[in-house]
Amino acid sequence: MSDYDVFLSDCPARTALDLVADTWSVVVVYGLGRGPHRYSELHARIGGISKKMLTQTLRKLERNRLIERRVLATAPAGAEYRLTPLGRSLLGPVTVLAGWAEQHAEELAGDDD
Amino acid sequence: MSDYDVFLSDCPARTALDLVADTWSVVVVYGLGRGPHRYSELHARIGGISKKMLTQTLRKLERNRLIERRVLATAPAGAEYRLTPLGRSLLGPVTVLAGWAEQHAEELAGDDD
Repeated sequence: MSDYDVFLSDCPARTALDLVADTWSVVVVYGLGRGPHRYSELHARIGGISKKMLTQTLRKLERNRLIERRVLATAPAGAEYRLTPLGRSLLGPVTVLAGWAEQHAEELAGDDD
Repeated sequence: MSDYDVFLSDCPARTALDLVADTWSVVVVYGLGRGPHRYSELHARIGGISKKMLTQTLRKLERNRLIERRVLATAPAGAEYRLTPLGRSLLGPVTVLAGWAEQHAEELAGDDD
């Protein structure tokens, strides 16, 4: 048990949940779980994400030390993103959530309301 | 393995992920995991949620058959919300994600950027 509680609005656990409980954060972390990616690779891999949204999501995750950006000694110069140890700790929860979405997609899509 | 893929923008899995990958959906499902709740109980339990946002979140989850609203034969009349079988299937992933947030809250709160 933790002393933190996501039910409390001013608890750091709620802040932590706010940080990661959105589609783009989940998909980016899930994608980086397969290994480091360049920006262009992530943009190609993640359908429907705008460059602005991808940049914002990467910056947010980097600022919170879930991912790190590493400049590559290549020509032309490039950079890649990878999960930090903290980010890797999120990979399990994110994989479970994305797996649930993939497994139950059909049931949810059957909604005619 | 599923045929569905959250990386694809037009895949039902992405739609399913969009539905549940937000803080309020996570907290409401997590809360209902402890048993049925009346609206007023949920509102009291979930810190910081406005009535408008709670109503919207409950309607969205109900429309997608993750929760059900049951009218109670009480005086004054009341209603309670509970997870459906589909909603209960989401309880595991949501519990893992909320648990991660509670466990890593301190590390993330240490961010001074």
